Amino acid sequence: MKKYQQLAQKLIDQIELGVWIPGDKLPSIRELVTTSEMSFVTVGHAYHLLESQGRVIARPQSGYYVAPKADNLKPHPVSQVNQDEAVDINTYIFEVMQAGKDPSIIPFGSGFPDPLLFPHQQLNRSLVHTSKTTSALSVINNLPPGNIDLRQAIARRYAQQGMSISPEEIVITAGALEALNLSLQAVTEPGDWVIVENPCFYNALQALERLRLRALSIATDVDEGINLEALEQALIDYPVKACWLMTNCQNPLGFTLSPEKKRRLIALLTKYKVVLIEDDVYSELYAGRDKPLPAKAWDTEDMTLHCSSFSKCLVSGFRIGWVAAGKHAPRVQQLQFMSTLSTSSPMQLAIVDYLATRSYEQHLRKLRRTLSSRKKSIGQILQRHLPREVSIHYNEGGYFLWLELPRNLDASELSKKTLAQGISIAPGKMFSTSDLLSHCFRINTSWEWGEKEETAAKTIGEIIRRMIIQSQLSGQV
Amino acid sequence: MKKYQQLAQKLIDQIELGVWIPGDKLPSIRELVTTSEMSFVTVGHAYHLLESQGRVIARPQSGYYVAPKADNLKPHPVSQVNQDEAVDINTYIFEVMQAGKDPSIIPFGSGFPDPLLFPHQQLNRSLVHTSKTTSALSVINNLPPGNIDLRQAIARRYAQQGMSISPEEIVITAGALEALNLSLQAVTEPGDWVIVENPCFYNALQALERLRLRALSIATDVDEGINLEALEQALIDYPVKACWLMTNCQNPLGFTLSPEKKRRLIALLTKYKVVLIEDDVYSELYAGRDKPLPAKAWDTEDMTLHCSSFSKCLVSGFRIGWVAAGKHAPRVQQLQFMSTLSTSSPMQLAIVDYLATRSYEQHLRKLRRTLSSRKKSIGQILQRHLPREVSIHYNEGGYFLWLELPRNLDASELSKKTLAQGISIAPGKMFSTSDLLSHCFRINTSWEWGEKEETAAKTIGEIIRRMIIQSQLSGQV
Repeated sequence: MKKYQQLAQKLIDQIELGVWIPGDKLPSIRELVTTSEMSFVTVGHAYHLLESQGRVIARPQSGYYVAPKADNLKPHPVSQVNQDEAVDINTYIFEVMQAGKDPSIIPFGSGFPDPLLFPHQQLNRSLVHTSKTTSALSVINNLPPGNIDLRQAIARRYAQQGMSISPEEIVITAGALEALNLSLQAVTEPGDWVIVENPCFYNALQALERLRLRALSIATDVDEGINLEALEQALIDYPVKACWLMTNCQNPLGFTLSPEKKRRLIALLTKYKVVLIEDDVYSELYAGRDKPLPAKAWDTEDMTLHCSSFSKCLVSGFRIGWVAAGKHAPRVQQLQFMSTLSTSSPMQLAIVDYLATRSYEQHLRKLRRTLSSRKKSIGQILQRHLPREVSIHYNEGGYFLWLELPRNLDASELSKKTLAQGISIAPGKMFSTSDLLSHCFRINTSWEWGEKEETAAKTIGEIIRRMIIQSQLSGQV
Repeated sequence: MKKYQQLAQKLIDQIELGVWIPGDKLPSIRELVTTSEMSFVTVGHAYHLLESQGRVIARPQSGYYVAPKADNLKPHPVSQVNQDEAVDINTYIFEVMQAGKDPSIIPFGSGFPDPLLFPHQQLNRSLVHTSKTTSALSVINNLPPGNIDLRQAIARRYAQQGMSISPEEIVITAGALEALNLSLQAVTEPGDWVIVENPCFYNALQALERLRLRALSIATDVDEGINLEALEQALIDYPVKACWLMTNCQNPLGFTLSPEKKRRLIALLTKYKVVLIEDDVYSELYAGRDKPLPAKAWDTEDMTLHCSSFSKCLVSGFRIGWVAAGKHAPRVQQLQFMSTLSTSSPMQLAIVDYLATRSYEQHLRKLRRTLSSRKKSIGQILQRHLPREVSIHYNEGGYFLWLELPRNLDASELSKKTLAQGISIAPGKMFSTSDLLSHCFRINTSWEWGEKEETAAKTIGEIIRRMIIQSQLSGQV
């Protein structure tokens, strides 16, 4: 192949890879001469060849542009290559979540709250304000454990609830997810036993898998939460290192543990010297009069790492969370320092600025009201459109509903069918290591419902009805 | 203890923990009545008690404020508790890095370039611009693998060097550090052997330790880089899974591998089917005429994960990096999805906006010129002030100098002594699993030098002279 043909082929490769897309201006002849070390004549030849093949369009006085795409020239993204590999739980979860990225899908399966509920404008104002007033050197102040003003603001929110947490115990993280992962890693070694709820937040299962820990799933009731008798039995039978729980507005079930149960939980874990990793990202979204305390409030032995974030109640895209890690804070800091170094400083500063405007409480009140009323009305609509064989478990707080199909039906099957109709749901299999909850699914009720969503609810209802009939027919055979 | 005494004690606890600092306005009586569920009288009593103890100051018509701190009321930050624990390499590195956070320390040991060299104003303009123009829903577009415009902009920079990398192969990460960690995790299992350079970037050692991998350190020359014969011997003797190298402006030594050596490196790794994790964060800071290619440019088997970032050449606080991971991209995405979820969306968008202004190249040219001239002149100053027993290794590109003390001296010892004088250096021990380089240290030359820095160089010279004399005396005994 001649030099100009090689160059032309390279440009075709780049177009097929998506580096340049139809309509993009390609590098000028002069630029290519510099970077490729070929002559003007050679580069010119390459472009003429591409033009003659209809791959580029020459615009006089302007340059060469990528031609509109013909159907047989589709790029082959790398991500398609691996889709046929063996599916494990992570791949399954990842696929369900990736489906949610498609804006045409109705996101009942999403874990995120409707971002339109967030104070986008005020946050931007804070971002603009801080970026205008901070110096280039401020980066250093935001290294682990994170910006001191932000840690202090978080400590004060604990203080509002009567909890005394030093800013020194708090590490700022990339959302609660990094906080939870670092906490788990700080207190375990590969091979250790860790207790989780069944069902639990799927990231707990993923984190355990990633850190090569062994999971003990404890039966967890949709209204009452974790079964403390089963928990104690597990603590007796296994050398458990840590326990990862959600105590307020649990995901996916929605319950909030009573104060008495939180007290008993802590007493139990203290007795067996087991660290509690408390995932508490939804407590700002409580529906009642007072914000529920975390279990950490009952902990007098500094054995709870309390993880939370602003992602569910203020802004998800900033990726700002934290852990109140007590004596484990230095280890958590070190682990962060080794893995992501730190959280981005403009994001930390913008949240400090926003919190200082004092409009946070007002925003939260409005958010709680909206989420609460949406959950109620969506619950009613679902009741209307789903067959009565489906149980809808209603819990106050948060923005999830937990639904149960008849036991012989598979919610993963339902999920596949609804996704084919452009509707995502979150099937029980995502939240459990066992098959006990494969007939359940979670619905996100944070989004505003219109006609499209109500039609989607009807569609789900029809699919379930057909699944019920089919299962009856196959039962008769 | 009575109720009002309990409340007063809680407020004292919070003040001692640093939740409230001297001068802070404390919660109003009304707020405390609401949150503590005590009566107005009780809360009032508590504040009177604190006032009588001199802990708070009452300001009429305004509220209660924390009194100035008396010396015996110092808070006891948690981080002090663990300082006496057994020191491992990570704790050592962490301490050296934490010392750099103190703005009074002269940061010769820092790994960061002088942030004043970054286009702070233009970046802020981009941040302001994007925050004004993006919708709340943009968050979804920035989930792993990251914003498509940013991935495309990065793919185009590869294309400028003649490399064809699809945006689909690129995952946006929290700096290169997350990219490297995720890459390493994507291609290894705990217990696997991984090759690193000796000396190498200390985060490589930390990452290996964190992921419970086994390190094989290969002798690496200050000018020529890794010893390929030693590398091949290691590949023959051990079942090596991956090789983590810096090919351009290596940290800490500063060399750039020749194109021929990169080609041979790739040929060797291809022969033994070993994945290359290429840490290439400094290649934009080359000093010569053309940006050096990464070793990945010679890779035809898709076995190189190329990691880089904007942290060393544009802005460190944003924490935006990437990996061009080829066929490993889906696994890297999944691992990110499990550990930090994603990179913050305003940071990604601001960099896209900045890159679109086309001032990046101009900034880079200026940055390279400044770094290059500072390195030269600081090298000369050091030459003048350090005893001639110290060898200064000069390499083009990047902003580090590598210095060698006489072999019997310990640079960690020197580091302790200079730190006591308010000067940090980065001792060889940070970059190596062996003791072979304990007499070496790294100096950051990116900062502007004035009188203070020159005096610091003199101080280092004097300390070294004294160490040489002491070692001679003890040698005579």
